[in-house]
Amino acid sequence: MFETLEVGKRIKGGEFSKLELPLRQNLLAAQFELAERDYPVIIVIAGLDGAGKGSLVHRLNEWMDPRGIQTNTFWEHSDEEESRPFFWRFWRRLPARGQIGIFLGSWYTAPAQALLEGHIDTAEFALRCKQIETFEHTLVDDGAVIIKIWLHVSKETQRLQLEGKAPDKQQNPRVSDHPYELVGKYEQTLEVCEQLILGTDSSHSPWQLIESEDRNYRDITAGQIMLDAMTAKSPTPAQTMVQNGQRATDIGAQPTVLDTVDLSLTMERDRYKEQLSKYQARLQDLAWVAYRRKRSVVAVFEGWDAAGKGSAIRRVTGAIDPRLYRLVQFAAPTDEELAHHYLWRFWRHIERDGRCTFFDRSWYGRVLVERVEGYATADEWQRAYAEINQFEQQLVEHGSIVVKFWIHISKNEQIKRFEAREKEAHKRHKITEDDWRNREKWHEYAQAIDQMVSRTSTSHAPWTLVSGDDKPHARIQILKTFCKTMKRALED
Amino acid sequence: MFETLEVGKRIKGGEFSKLELPLRQNLLAAQFELAERDYPVIIVIAGLDGAGKGSLVHRLNEWMDPRGIQTNTFWEHSDEEESRPFFWRFWRRLPARGQIGIFLGSWYTAPAQALLEGHIDTAEFALRCKQIETFEHTLVDDGAVIIKIWLHVSKETQRLQLEGKAPDKQQNPRVSDHPYELVGKYEQTLEVCEQLILGTDSSHSPWQLIESEDRNYRDITAGQIMLDAMTAKSPTPAQTMVQNGQRATDIGAQPTVLDTVDLSLTMERDRYKEQLSKYQARLQDLAWVAYRRKRSVVAVFEGWDAAGKGSAIRRVTGAIDPRLYRLVQFAAPTDEELAHHYLWRFWRHIERDGRCTFFDRSWYGRVLVERVEGYATADEWQRAYAEINQFEQQLVEHGSIVVKFWIHISKNEQIKRFEAREKEAHKRHKITEDDWRNREKWHEYAQAIDQMVSRTSTSHAPWTLVSGDDKPHARIQILKTFCKTMKRALED
Repeated sequence: MFETLEVGKRIKGGEFSKLELPLRQNLLAAQFELAERDYPVIIVIAGLDGAGKGSLVHRLNEWMDPRGIQTNTFWEHSDEEESRPFFWRFWRRLPARGQIGIFLGSWYTAPAQALLEGHIDTAEFALRCKQIETFEHTLVDDGAVIIKIWLHVSKETQRLQLEGKAPDKQQNPRVSDHPYELVGKYEQTLEVCEQLILGTDSSHSPWQLIESEDRNYRDITAGQIMLDAMTAKSPTPAQTMVQNGQRATDIGAQPTVLDTVDLSLTMERDRYKEQLSKYQARLQDLAWVAYRRKRSVVAVFEGWDAAGKGSAIRRVTGAIDPRLYRLVQFAAPTDEELAHHYLWRFWRHIERDGRCTFFDRSWYGRVLVERVEGYATADEWQRAYAEINQFEQQLVEHGSIVVKFWIHISKNEQIKRFEAREKEAHKRHKITEDDWRNREKWHEYAQAIDQMVSRTSTSHAPWTLVSGDDKPHARIQILKTFCKTMKRALED
Repeated sequence: MFETLEVGKRIKGGEFSKLELPLRQNLLAAQFELAERDYPVIIVIAGLDGAGKGSLVHRLNEWMDPRGIQTNTFWEHSDEEESRPFFWRFWRRLPARGQIGIFLGSWYTAPAQALLEGHIDTAEFALRCKQIETFEHTLVDDGAVIIKIWLHVSKETQRLQLEGKAPDKQQNPRVSDHPYELVGKYEQTLEVCEQLILGTDSSHSPWQLIESEDRNYRDITAGQIMLDAMTAKSPTPAQTMVQNGQRATDIGAQPTVLDTVDLSLTMERDRYKEQLSKYQARLQDLAWVAYRRKRSVVAVFEGWDAAGKGSAIRRVTGAIDPRLYRLVQFAAPTDEELAHHYLWRFWRHIERDGRCTFFDRSWYGRVLVERVEGYATADEWQRAYAEINQFEQQLVEHGSIVVKFWIHISKNEQIKRFEAREKEAHKRHKITEDDWRNREKWHEYAQAIDQMVSRTSTSHAPWTLVSGDDKPHARIQILKTFCKTMKRALED
């Protein structure tokens, strides 16, 4: 989840100025229009200490008219609050219709802290998440727009920020001098954050995660998310908008999580052969162990066109007794599938305990091809992240082992393979019109992949980004990851 | 909750025939229209054993075209099902768009049974409820209409039904011969049922509770609920409807829970005086105990116009040290209140631990006057039941003691009091136009009250229906209930 938030997204000073002016004008226009509307806007700003929550709020107040914005902090726990039900403190601070309420520190703070400090167990934590969902749902049912922004910084940046050594420090005196993360608990904190986000990510009030290493990127992105949310229900969104409100993510080539993949990795033929037999033998054994222990495996293979998905899958299936696995391929849905919820076509292929199912393309089509090609509406693909997480969580809770691969290749490598395929008439897979069209949308796909990994790479079902320019290397990386994941799961 | 389902609602044979024909025609028309639509209808039929779930399904299949209806039971737990995640068995049976799927035995059966048999604790049960909510929400987001019908029978009727002694028995051989309720666990079963209903009642898929003593009433009511739900999303609901589709609840005077109140109860003056000082003294003490133990009291007073609400409240407040309580009256909301969620105006009056708050009219206005007078939309008041339950549950979980009174009087008694007030010029509360208008809507109010009690009388915050024709009796009943509830809560 957080690996996509440390890829170095940034906006330089000159670009920032160009983006800031139209964004400010748009936000101000949206705010004035909101004043006439019969719903409030509730903005939750959460995230790691040192990620700049305070400074973002400062900027938002600068950009908009602070008279229509209430900023709420819940630093001091007053005894007035403690002596009433938990949500009372938030109810009394809710913005009126037409107003904006920013919650810095919110209903999210207490459950996360309680879990971190061991005061509640995970069952109690899950219950608290449900109460939060119910609370937010009640407000959304009444018309409220809820925007939840999560700011993330890397361990190192956080340390610098909190120790006051950050180069572009712009912090106010802080209330808590000793965040939990500082005392060697950064990883543990992230784990709780992931649970918090997954447990409260819903179609009516989704989380938006923002990389916050660079404050220009952070602020512009947060501003644009707010603008989108504030104008989504507006009857005349287009007309209130000042022209040229370009999106931060559209500027030049913002790096994505794919840029963190080292595509220069290769593997020599001899070494490949040796590793292949080693890991295939190991996988063969593991598949039988899983069978005996009644643990099923759900493996997802996704990747660019010509990334070598098919041949990589063959190296995996080649290792496993055919009685133990099923390979399912997905192209366009059938009529019957279209007549059901999009997850139905995948649920039906979930195999029984002890068996492996390999998905050659999967439910992630919803947030990849269906999103980019417009087959799914924005509402549909946006709520799919939470739906997919819930689906995979059910698999994991049942005892399934979930592995997910995205095979990444460079644009150059792809064109080489396309051309090679066109020359070799004997290759069964011809290059189609679709392949060329997808290639033109490389940038949109990269963004969709970045968000997919950000929203669905979880500790119980993480994504593995495979370095695919060198096929031998890719195959071994997949086999190795497969073995490692199964081994760890079967040791439990 | 279930007390409203044992009031003797019934439809006689002749009336049944008059209602059945248009209902059948309408259901059939709605079903044919549904076939053209892009969403499925999912009907969950749940309830106590012996309530006639099977016979209702039989009737539905008779009324509609069985070719568009799939009935799903989950009697046998196949190993195919057991070896996959819990919801897999339901996913594969979901109806396609344009189709109807009836679930007899559903995702509700297993968690309820597990709790009853002690295999899971309440935290785990709450979590299962959350999973159910998420599952249903996923389907509703995709367009599905979910209708959840709960059938209830009294303990005695259930026994007769299950022992095959019911007069109008029409049962098929049953799968389970030994329902839990039969072995002396009827009350315990009801408690779990209440938790199940409260935990999964949501704005997107609410529960509908039906008294099932009389199968004519049960079937007509279920049919009409289904018809409403099936046509709610139809673009031309009115035109598809055959005329004269009268509602079962509108026929003659269906009894409501108010009819179970014995209005003949009176209290002699001397006895009243003695009881008054006894219970006021007790209440005075209990209020101080509550203060010391930091338990707050939230008391709701509702009732017909001229039911004697004000004077009853005075007998309660008269007993308590003024430093310990606040009395809040509600008339039309202020501008500021209107600019927030309707619950906001009540949350702001929640007092701190140890204090009593008396609400002279309350959040129940939403499902009473606002419903009947049309100030709230059907969507708004229908989702209010779940919102109110969640609100009160938060109070109770925080440690508050919640008591709720509806003061009931007869229509005759009301007119007597109206006339008396008009004569006595010195009475401060004149009879207004509103009072007379409300009186004309007595029947609609009675229905709204019936449903209010049905949906919001819970074991943690039950309604007390006060017999109010005799004021002394009413006051003592209130004081006594107050003392009893506080005493029990403070002993915990």
